[in-house]
Amino acid sequence: MTLTEMDKNELVSRKAQWEEEYNGFKAQGLKLNMARGKPSPEQLDLTMDMLNVLDSNTDFTGENGDDYRNYGLLGGIPEAKRLFSKMIGVSEKEILVCGNASLNIMYDVISTAYAKGLMGCKPWCRYDKVKFLCPVPGYDRHFAICESFGIEMINIPTTPEGPDMDMVEKLVNEDDTVKGIWCVPQYTNPTGYVYSDETVKRFAALKPAAKDFRIFWDNAYCIHHLVDTPRICLNILDECKKTGNEDMPLIFGSTSKITFPGAGVAVMGASESNIASLLKVMGIRTIGYDKTNQLRHVKYFGSFENMQKHMDKHKASIRPKFDAVLSALEDNIAPLGIGTWSKPEGGYFVSFDSMPGCAKRIVALCKEAGVTLTGAGAAFPYGKDPEDKNIRIAPTYPTVDELKKAMEIFCLSVKIASAEKLLADQA
Amino acid sequence: MTLTEMDKNELVSRKAQWEEEYNGFKAQGLKLNMARGKPSPEQLDLTMDMLNVLDSNTDFTGENGDDYRNYGLLGGIPEAKRLFSKMIGVSEKEILVCGNASLNIMYDVISTAYAKGLMGCKPWCRYDKVKFLCPVPGYDRHFAICESFGIEMINIPTTPEGPDMDMVEKLVNEDDTVKGIWCVPQYTNPTGYVYSDETVKRFAALKPAAKDFRIFWDNAYCIHHLVDTPRICLNILDECKKTGNEDMPLIFGSTSKITFPGAGVAVMGASESNIASLLKVMGIRTIGYDKTNQLRHVKYFGSFENMQKHMDKHKASIRPKFDAVLSALEDNIAPLGIGTWSKPEGGYFVSFDSMPGCAKRIVALCKEAGVTLTGAGAAFPYGKDPEDKNIRIAPTYPTVDELKKAMEIFCLSVKIASAEKLLADQA
Repeated sequence: MTLTEMDKNELVSRKAQWEEEYNGFKAQGLKLNMARGKPSPEQLDLTMDMLNVLDSNTDFTGENGDDYRNYGLLGGIPEAKRLFSKMIGVSEKEILVCGNASLNIMYDVISTAYAKGLMGCKPWCRYDKVKFLCPVPGYDRHFAICESFGIEMINIPTTPEGPDMDMVEKLVNEDDTVKGIWCVPQYTNPTGYVYSDETVKRFAALKPAAKDFRIFWDNAYCIHHLVDTPRICLNILDECKKTGNEDMPLIFGSTSKITFPGAGVAVMGASESNIASLLKVMGIRTIGYDKTNQLRHVKYFGSFENMQKHMDKHKASIRPKFDAVLSALEDNIAPLGIGTWSKPEGGYFVSFDSMPGCAKRIVALCKEAGVTLTGAGAAFPYGKDPEDKNIRIAPTYPTVDELKKAMEIFCLSVKIASAEKLLADQA
Repeated sequence: MTLTEMDKNELVSRKAQWEEEYNGFKAQGLKLNMARGKPSPEQLDLTMDMLNVLDSNTDFTGENGDDYRNYGLLGGIPEAKRLFSKMIGVSEKEILVCGNASLNIMYDVISTAYAKGLMGCKPWCRYDKVKFLCPVPGYDRHFAICESFGIEMINIPTTPEGPDMDMVEKLVNEDDTVKGIWCVPQYTNPTGYVYSDETVKRFAALKPAAKDFRIFWDNAYCIHHLVDTPRICLNILDECKKTGNEDMPLIFGSTSKITFPGAGVAVMGASESNIASLLKVMGIRTIGYDKTNQLRHVKYFGSFENMQKHMDKHKASIRPKFDAVLSALEDNIAPLGIGTWSKPEGGYFVSFDSMPGCAKRIVALCKEAGVTLTGAGAAFPYGKDPEDKNIRIAPTYPTVDELKKAMEIFCLSVKIASAEKLLADQA
């Protein structure tokens, strides 16, 4: 029997029982965290040997003769361009290898567009209003960048195929103040979907009203698979070249969740025109990025194939955690019909949708019992989930045992909040 | 006899002789570079042991319990705050430890002021015009940031005491569109002066018309001494606290020329209000900087005293180079009265002033003979030296032997250009 099928007495009695269980957990004073997509210590241990790659005997002379310890090579060392261009699917002329955070590159592109304009276009600060399309649920840090620049965000519903392309086409092709869209094409954050071929082709076929419209293609999870035969999203730059739109996509990636989150290498792929134009601004902003860390990564992996093999170790470490989350939901929530969730084949999250109007309450209940979740609504622009139902679950950081306990509390919280809601609706 | 005292015949004959010598060098097809303030390979070798500090056995648990390999600690690890706060003369609450480039922090502050405003003030992009004061000659990359944001730059003459403070006071205290000033207080770039105590006190006593006026105090060379008993510039934040102006200075520093230029650690010191306000924007821009590299620096040095000792090794490496430049100028240029130059007690440059109207020609002559110098005028806003006389000499990168040869060519170029000028003036 699902929860909605129960009568009031049944609901009240079940709720009382769940609350008793919940209070039992609460009394344990637990401290469990499923809030952010952080690799676990076990995952970080996978990369420790990278720290032995460089030492005082290392020759830092690059293949071009440069001393990589010194200033220079603004756009990255050629060895790193070669390695990472394969990761994000561009040529070595279409990549910038930067510092430790792809978020920082995205911010810098938007900051440049805002203050100085992209490739000769009017700076966004000279408009009364500019807009971004935000497939939802999405990544809170993307939305925070827009909000901080006063860019108006428009929610775009997402299906397992990707964003609603009818809506995207209409808005992009008709409104020249629509300047960008945030995409996480391979394992969308938090839903874990992979954009379908048709979606990517429709992106490539856009005819933007704004010359400086850009697709922010955050391919953060491009090699972060949970399954053995992953479905791979089409290459957006290749598709855009076919349609004459090659300046439209900006592709981002990093090794934050491949090596170390604080000490990885971040990259941007784009058309040569975009690269040349953004390199000019980059040359005002800095003299160059950490080339020794770029070299550390290159020497550690040796090849892109080895990077992919390294990701198999991550997969082995985190797949049991995703399984624990999914089976807890399957066992506890499915029979009651009080939630739906994504079953991701990669990435870092499980996206859970409760009954409308319950997400905030669930997060609060979890918090009271010592389980920290991302704030309800975080996956929406301005932190506002119109239906108050979406919760992002990040399974990677806790151990499997912690996760099982956290999921017991989560499921109890979903049950209690749902019962409360139904009882209130009946009252 | 100085060059101006010579008659035409004497000038013509001397010039012919110098040209013959010059052509001799030109025929050698040399490739010498005195363009940028780059440490030499010998200097970079001084720090190689830093690469042994971290390895696969390192415990990355910080003093606060955090795992420094993972996300977090936006403003830097506490151990690094402690070390570098001593370097730039602030408390541990008044410092942000960031990525590898202080230039990037400066750019980000200006970008923030431009797009979003500082501490609640109107964003600079909402003004018709904002202005910066630029003590000249100065650092080309500072000026490039202003130029890229369309900020109008006003030249401020510099004496061995620092910028012309009468002019600074008048402009800052009377014009609320004057939003900043670029200062390199300890060994000004390129002149090598140390601001006098009076200059620093007058800075602290400014009464800016603009609430968001900031002193960009780029203390890049704060521990880069060439002499054994250096004169140390007064602490600007301390002085500003005395006058109630503690939000006015932003202090920048880095280890770019202490450890590795590409792989150092950059910091900003400022009042707690400034730090809190800039940290908010930083948290939109990135999740955090490279904490492993911060830890690498902390473990390598152990203490600020050890950092200072490390700088003695740099001093021993580069002082002979400065001596070579200065004695070449003393021997070849002084007797002819065709130039003046700074005799720096620290930093990375010697600033040379030729007869007015000769700098571009000297740089061109040097280039033809294989000696690359910073472009003439580079030390001035918009690259325009009003008198075309200033040339920045960077002695650190070449070996002493290369430098001696480069200086022979430089001095010959000065002589030829000066003779050409005098002959043209006489014609």
